[in-house]
Amino acid sequence: MDYRKFIAKSAEAFRASEIRELLKVVEARRVISFAGGYPDPETFPRESLARIAYEVVLNFGDKALQYAPTKGVTVFRETLIRWLKSKNVKVLNEDDLIVVTGSQQALDIVARTLIDPGDYIVTENPTYLAALTAFRPAKPNIVGIPVDSQGMRVDILEERLKELKSRGIIPRFVYTIPTAHNPTGISMSLERKRYLLELASKYDFLIIEDDPYSYFVYDEADVTRLKTLDSEGRVVYMGTLSKILSPGLRVGWILANRQLVDVFERAKQSMDLHTPSLSQYIAKEAIERGVVEETIEKAKRIYRVKRDAMVEALSEYLVRDSWWIKPVGGLFLMVWLPRAIDTKALLPKAVEAGVVYVPGAPFFVDESGTNTMRLNFSYPSVNDIRRGIEILGTLVRRELALPAGST
Amino acid sequence: MDYRKFIAKSAEAFRASEIRELLKVVEARRVISFAGGYPDPETFPRESLARIAYEVVLNFGDKALQYAPTKGVTVFRETLIRWLKSKNVKVLNEDDLIVVTGSQQALDIVARTLIDPGDYIVTENPTYLAALTAFRPAKPNIVGIPVDSQGMRVDILEERLKELKSRGIIPRFVYTIPTAHNPTGISMSLERKRYLLELASKYDFLIIEDDPYSYFVYDEADVTRLKTLDSEGRVVYMGTLSKILSPGLRVGWILANRQLVDVFERAKQSMDLHTPSLSQYIAKEAIERGVVEETIEKAKRIYRVKRDAMVEALSEYLVRDSWWIKPVGGLFLMVWLPRAIDTKALLPKAVEAGVVYVPGAPFFVDESGTNTMRLNFSYPSVNDIRRGIEILGTLVRRELALPAGST
Repeated sequence: MDYRKFIAKSAEAFRASEIRELLKVVEARRVISFAGGYPDPETFPRESLARIAYEVVLNFGDKALQYAPTKGVTVFRETLIRWLKSKNVKVLNEDDLIVVTGSQQALDIVARTLIDPGDYIVTENPTYLAALTAFRPAKPNIVGIPVDSQGMRVDILEERLKELKSRGIIPRFVYTIPTAHNPTGISMSLERKRYLLELASKYDFLIIEDDPYSYFVYDEADVTRLKTLDSEGRVVYMGTLSKILSPGLRVGWILANRQLVDVFERAKQSMDLHTPSLSQYIAKEAIERGVVEETIEKAKRIYRVKRDAMVEALSEYLVRDSWWIKPVGGLFLMVWLPRAIDTKALLPKAVEAGVVYVPGAPFFVDESGTNTMRLNFSYPSVNDIRRGIEILGTLVRRELALPAGST
Repeated sequence: MDYRKFIAKSAEAFRASEIRELLKVVEARRVISFAGGYPDPETFPRESLARIAYEVVLNFGDKALQYAPTKGVTVFRETLIRWLKSKNVKVLNEDDLIVVTGSQQALDIVARTLIDPGDYIVTENPTYLAALTAFRPAKPNIVGIPVDSQGMRVDILEERLKELKSRGIIPRFVYTIPTAHNPTGISMSLERKRYLLELASKYDFLIIEDDPYSYFVYDEADVTRLKTLDSEGRVVYMGTLSKILSPGLRVGWILANRQLVDVFERAKQSMDLHTPSLSQYIAKEAIERGVVEETIEKAKRIYRVKRDAMVEALSEYLVRDSWWIKPVGGLFLMVWLPRAIDTKALLPKAVEAGVVYVPGAPFFVDESGTNTMRLNFSYPSVNDIRRGIEILGTLVRRELALPAGST
């Protein structure tokens, strides 16, 4: 094959993600963006991190600038484990933790080590888009389980498990974001968490718990981790400092039983050798000096106000046949609009009117959810949130040919 | 399958690398190590980088601590391209460059986007071990081409290409480290570079040029890049700041034609979203303020002395039937010992005697080279280099049952 044809073939195989192409369009214009997933830079502790970065390079440069173990800088791993324990995350053993280059890498590692082509895996439906794009190259069959206001419908999961078992199939794992789920903002109830673990034990599968958001919930909310409830070593727990310190450091982690962590470590070694040593040394100091705690408190304050602004605006401006939940945390919520609305078709009109969101269908395993959109509330200002939702409300009413102001 | 059995199966699939296990042993003891691939921390510009890190976080924290484009921070990419051009690396187009998380990730990206199971790829034999471990999960057939003091034996490559073509096979790519090759230290002659490009054109394959070392050669040496000689967009060029600034930042890059870079970008997106923004902002300033140039000059000074110490000690202490070349750069050389020596079997005795190296066989595609060892000269001190080589010489003579002092 001519190498240029080969390149074209590869290009086809790695299609651009819709979000990515979208964001490129938006960059070129001034519109209110509910599309990204960026933390508010107001939350970044710049002064503290500048001082930490200076001291770390000057005093520990021999190590912070050098290659590091694949599993992570030892002193950072120790600090991180202590901190996780203080947050009620169960850590049985020091060897159970590996540092990764953001939790996106954790997803990639899971895909490459736990999925063989044709394996069945289970996710919420909808689920995190970048988890789907990480899992798909490993060629799994993905089973999507619907969600309601209490999280994954474990009753429906059980039906699907029975049905799969009757065909001799056990899913490799169930992937879930239990707290402030991306894209919906929904949190799983404690009852369902327990039920999910029972099912895992009964049907013998692993649980991948993706937990970027539980550390900064805005309301009194139960954030008991599946990992903490797990007594059989079935939960692979992923976390990240991206939303509680800085995404620019690319520091995340996986907690799992040691045998699995050994497998992850070997996979990571050929992926990027190790997560930047400098990021890890900075993160260690940021935890120890309380900078992460300060960031968490600040993020909670800022995001609570923005979340409230968004759900109020939605109540005020959106047509009555829409559905969403008020998330206890995270950066997102999802709106289900009346069935007649195609959010992908609506998007160019929205951009024209000065607001951008992510159409929901790609978050659905089956590309259903054509009437949904994911909205980010962490990045836009409170004013922009109100104005943007008002614009969206008007667009939707026009689309449905409803008179202005009607609900 | 019981999930514990499944884990055990995965653990089997991801075997520990020999180097890795070895280094764990060494960490526990005080021995002279020729085994690692660490830069000398003396080369790290700690004061300059501490100041840069401070200023970058304080002044550009909104961006340096935030998510960044998958392809890399734009201002860093611009700086890097200018710098590459000043080093005579041909860059046709701004779009041709993507920043990666160390060049290990570049290898992983190449493996995931350019190799389908069963494809043929070509490497030098021996070649960089971590390239083999990055390529192998994609299940290629790897053809190893021997090297001599002028680099890859392109005449033998041509024979193999003819033979493959007669079976209807065109290799996907030829992977090469033209300057100060790891593990051998050999550099490819200009004549062979031209011949390799002719073959690429005639047989229609890509060339993967892995180039961590050309920026700090110790002697007057030709470092013309294949990329610069390439007029058909066939060369995928990989570089890194690991040896000329700091490996702890994990900053590398790929230069290739734009269609390929688009493919790489989409793959990288699901791997780690982007390379740490902070590392990229620091690297940008380090290039612009001349810190990289200072580091290069310092590295050349330090490594030239160590390189000389090692080749002198080898001449002095090793048996006559050994072969190595004096590398013009890089961190390594390889010693071919008499056939009777099995360097893997010798290793425990070497550790016992206080010195450690990497047995060469795993660097060979066919696990031949059981009489070879890779030696690193960048990390140990000049005294340790002399003492360590003397110990090795004694061990080898004892192994061959030669009298002490004989050659």
